[in-house]
Amino acid sequence: MQSQTKKPRRTAERILDAALELLNRFGEPNVSTTLIASELGISPGNLYYHYPAKETLINALYERYEQALAERLGTAPDVDSLEAAWHFFQQLFEVAWQYRFLYRDLNDLLSKNRMLEARFQAALERKGRAVEAVVDGLVRAHAMTIAPAERAPLVQCLVVVASHWLNHEYARDPRHALEPERAEATLTRAVYHLLTLLQPYLGEPARQQLQARAPARPTAQLP
Amino acid sequence: MQSQTKKPRRTAERILDAALELLNRFGEPNVSTTLIASELGISPGNLYYHYPAKETLINALYERYEQALAERLGTAPDVDSLEAAWHFFQQLFEVAWQYRFLYRDLNDLLSKNRMLEARFQAALERKGRAVEAVVDGLVRAHAMTIAPAERAPLVQCLVVVASHWLNHEYARDPRHALEPERAEATLTRAVYHLLTLLQPYLGEPARQQLQARAPARPTAQLP
Repeated sequence: MQSQTKKPRRTAERILDAALELLNRFGEPNVSTTLIASELGISPGNLYYHYPAKETLINALYERYEQALAERLGTAPDVDSLEAAWHFFQQLFEVAWQYRFLYRDLNDLLSKNRMLEARFQAALERKGRAVEAVVDGLVRAHAMTIAPAERAPLVQCLVVVASHWLNHEYARDPRHALEPERAEATLTRAVYHLLTLLQPYLGEPARQQLQARAPARPTAQLP
Repeated sequence: MQSQTKKPRRTAERILDAALELLNRFGEPNVSTTLIASELGISPGNLYYHYPAKETLINALYERYEQALAERLGTAPDVDSLEAAWHFFQQLFEVAWQYRFLYRDLNDLLSKNRMLEARFQAALERKGRAVEAVVDGLVRAHAMTIAPAERAPLVQCLVVVASHWLNHEYARDPRHALEPERAEATLTRAVYHLLTLLQPYLGEPARQQLQARAPARPTAQLP
């Protein structure tokens, strides 16, 4: 991966890193290419040379997001225990966290960016199939049982919670919910709540494993 | 309510109605007060007289939303059957649909509008308590049973699905999902999926009632 190369990071990558941080902090509508250039101490012309429009920059970040997501989704068929499912969804939420500006302003981004519109749909489909594979893996490993008719709607609801939990936290507390120091608690709460949707289908050992991972005050800050 | 008065509708209300339609169609970032005035055939000055800023207009629409939501949430303690729960959530999704621009651009709206920020948090809390009352009503009516420890996380997930299902549909198909002709199918799918989260806790009669309401092709268009 680019960020692991031993050459000094190229300007194009430094721009992406700085842009991602600003976008996550202030939200897409509030971050201009001028702000990004000034944050990096480079001229707007230099930034423009690498990314001739804000959309180009957003799309490059989206490519990174998609690659990170694909890596995580690729591990879905290996899930064979509640612990492995926890790990899988934690990884998924970590990607969503790293690129939280995408989810936070998703609808607006989708309405004005055709590349994102098409690719995000495809990413959602892949996410749905991966979640299906996780459920099937748990069933195969006898960690859970579910009637065939209940599987598809459950998968949909898991995808909705996986995609929107962070937005829900943001709506509940816009000033703090997505601040970096909240990351760990927020992600643990996200994974735990998502997996409670599987709870009624889990066998006793898996159910106990899930309960052992319940956050100390799972809903203390929740409505 | 204002819209039921027999006097001719006042300009202020006509402005709100037109604004709501435009906002739902194009999204908040793409609707200016100039566009609203031109759609109504009134002068920008006349609109300005009633709503001196776009924010004032958005806030007035939010008041309407909050009132409609409060009316629906107020019926939660009466829910005593799966049918009643279906009706309750359908009403909730109908309000979310009528004011879908709010949810579609929620995060951006919350970040720039302090009135919305505070009141939306309070509304989310009320929504959480109402959903809790629905679950408790179903338990009291012996339509479902649930362990005390599972109730709070389930309520949270129900709130997330109730609040974000429409956004999920939008992300899956931005050009069509929120068009008026899709309303009925979208709302039925939303209510059905939300209630499938209760399914494992339902007694057999309620479970059969839910299955009888399954959309013909519940997930045909879903990832």
